[in-house]
Amino acid sequence: MPDADEFVVTPYEVRGKVDYDRLRELFGTQELTPELLQRLRRLAGGELHPLLARGIYYSHRDLEGLLTAFESGRPFFVYSGRGPSGPLHTSHLAQFELCRWFQQRLRVPMYVQITDDEKFWSRAGLSREETVRWGYENLYDILALGFDPKRTRVFFDSRSIAALYPLAVRVARKITYSSVKAVFGLEPSANIGWIFYTALQTVPAFWPSWAEGREVRCLIPCGIDQDPHFRLTRDVAEGLGYPKPALVHSRMVPGLLGEAAMSTTGGSEDGALFLNDPPKTVERKVRNAFTGGRATVEEQRRLGANPEICSIWALWRTRFAASDDELDRLTADCRSGALLCGDCKSRLLERVQPFLRDHAERREKVKEWAESTIVTEAPRPI
Amino acid sequence: MPDADEFVVTPYEVRGKVDYDRLRELFGTQELTPELLQRLRRLAGGELHPLLARGIYYSHRDLEGLLTAFESGRPFFVYSGRGPSGPLHTSHLAQFELCRWFQQRLRVPMYVQITDDEKFWSRAGLSREETVRWGYENLYDILALGFDPKRTRVFFDSRSIAALYPLAVRVARKITYSSVKAVFGLEPSANIGWIFYTALQTVPAFWPSWAEGREVRCLIPCGIDQDPHFRLTRDVAEGLGYPKPALVHSRMVPGLLGEAAMSTTGGSEDGALFLNDPPKTVERKVRNAFTGGRATVEEQRRLGANPEICSIWALWRTRFAASDDELDRLTADCRSGALLCGDCKSRLLERVQPFLRDHAERREKVKEWAESTIVTEAPRPI
Repeated sequence: MPDADEFVVTPYEVRGKVDYDRLRELFGTQELTPELLQRLRRLAGGELHPLLARGIYYSHRDLEGLLTAFESGRPFFVYSGRGPSGPLHTSHLAQFELCRWFQQRLRVPMYVQITDDEKFWSRAGLSREETVRWGYENLYDILALGFDPKRTRVFFDSRSIAALYPLAVRVARKITYSSVKAVFGLEPSANIGWIFYTALQTVPAFWPSWAEGREVRCLIPCGIDQDPHFRLTRDVAEGLGYPKPALVHSRMVPGLLGEAAMSTTGGSEDGALFLNDPPKTVERKVRNAFTGGRATVEEQRRLGANPEICSIWALWRTRFAASDDELDRLTADCRSGALLCGDCKSRLLERVQPFLRDHAERREKVKEWAESTIVTEAPRPI
Repeated sequence: MPDADEFVVTPYEVRGKVDYDRLRELFGTQELTPELLQRLRRLAGGELHPLLARGIYYSHRDLEGLLTAFESGRPFFVYSGRGPSGPLHTSHLAQFELCRWFQQRLRVPMYVQITDDEKFWSRAGLSREETVRWGYENLYDILALGFDPKRTRVFFDSRSIAALYPLAVRVARKITYSSVKAVFGLEPSANIGWIFYTALQTVPAFWPSWAEGREVRCLIPCGIDQDPHFRLTRDVAEGLGYPKPALVHSRMVPGLLGEAAMSTTGGSEDGALFLNDPPKTVERKVRNAFTGGRATVEEQRRLGANPEICSIWALWRTRFAASDDELDRLTADCRSGALLCGDCKSRLLERVQPFLRDHAERREKVKEWAESTIVTEAPRPI
């Protein structure tokens, strides 16, 4: 890790001005090159998801090997998860969006893990009732992004434990407390549930191979901060006879108040745009959001603004620009001073409010079939 | 703990000449007094189990409170378990025998835990297939002691995880790695399954209270070496709103080769009488067993032998003497020199061989209903 006064990125903390290229080098991951993106575009029928096209996803592990195998007819699936401690915010969607895209374009299965046990263990203030309730709320939000019920399976940890445990028992023998301490920084005063939990997070990566009795590769889209989690998974894979999961890593979406990552852990709720925020709250948060603008209108007209540091620009880039062309125009107008922050925020609100309204509607429909996606039985007892 | 050259008693090791009264003081447990035994005898309809009458069980925690509650109509159950790493030997039966006695005399439920996950985690050489197979073999042996199918429930960890996990999640948040290290000596190089496991061992003590939504006290008969396990359970009980389990502790049954406890962990198989030993093996092991006899017949006739240190006498005392009178006569004849070790062993074999034959028959019958005792569903999801 670099000096603490530069930046810090761990599964539990993102702080400072992150140098993403340097981080990729530090973590030892591979660059998501134009060639690899081109290959993905071809496989996906000529289009690339904006999160890929706009460079939000920028790093990977073993994606090339997975695609080569896929091209020769070998199956893979996508896997992502959520620790349910509260409502989802827009930056949580990046990993699920990419999963949905893979599912729609390549018709691959999606496995979602809802870690209601882990959040109970890692957050002293949460009750079991709360982590379970948020588990369902979050699951509805995820499924509402457009997952196919027939190709989507959910591990809701406490409800799916019979399905997960036989494999978790084998995974857990391969991981020591020392490793957990090194990767997650869990001190001896940590509870034994939290320490054990990483075994359960590893299971979905191997589960389809175990269940189907054949090699089914796993692709995990995640924030680069979550890479250490899955290094453990990759470390134990071969010893258990399963392929190492491949990863694609995204940059962090900055918070609305200028934080390095949108997160409410230890921060203000105003830094994040929640999917269940009422329209007035959304308006207020966007209006108060940190931008790259100048001190006065006159100055901004003259000198232009800086999109690189702007939380509103990050929202356009990660989700709300309808096309790359629109994003390019917005960016140019921002830099030139033609577009003022107030106007930019008004335009963004015209995209955000309908998105949240539509999402809420899709979410209601999902409730009819969400339950049917939860896996409750093991494919075999041992 | 006393000096290492005196004796050592932990959940994973019993070594040296154990001073059981001193051990009780060190552990801070209470004496199983004649008054308390008398009270048990009354409750049980006038008889006391030989393991109680002959002082094998000699210590307890909170037994008085449990009996007082029971006398005023409040329910309790007995709980014991087994880590399935191989066949059971006769000294394993002491805890289950006492459970069966409580079930028959006081008509209380019995909960058995078969920890096939824990043995996989704690014994690097065992496969999952082996711990599961031994789990069933051991379960048949336990049930064959005469448990009532209607009053007996079994947690076979990997098969019962859906039933255990919701409560295990809550227990695990209360126990830190530091505690597990202090109690079990598990170093940072231990795997996270083994570290987590004590949460699962605690669950059955609270499960009936949780399942029935009322206070159901728990009584755990165990070797005194297992007391530290359940100190953790007692420590977390109140914070979770359940009564602390009561314990009754037995001395260890010495090994046939003179070991402080009959155990094959790190020792010779000849030190233990397995329930599945063929008659010839039983004969050989008993004939070779360490006794308190003298160097020559002449000397023994003249000076008598010492039953206190004799592994054969321990077998008479813990299981094979048909009555206290018989045990007293045997003991007197041993001390006087009237009974020689060879004859004593012949007499014992006349009890052991039919016992093992009958046990094997009962065991076959148990297989018909053993499966029906395994709990697989949680009483409620959270």
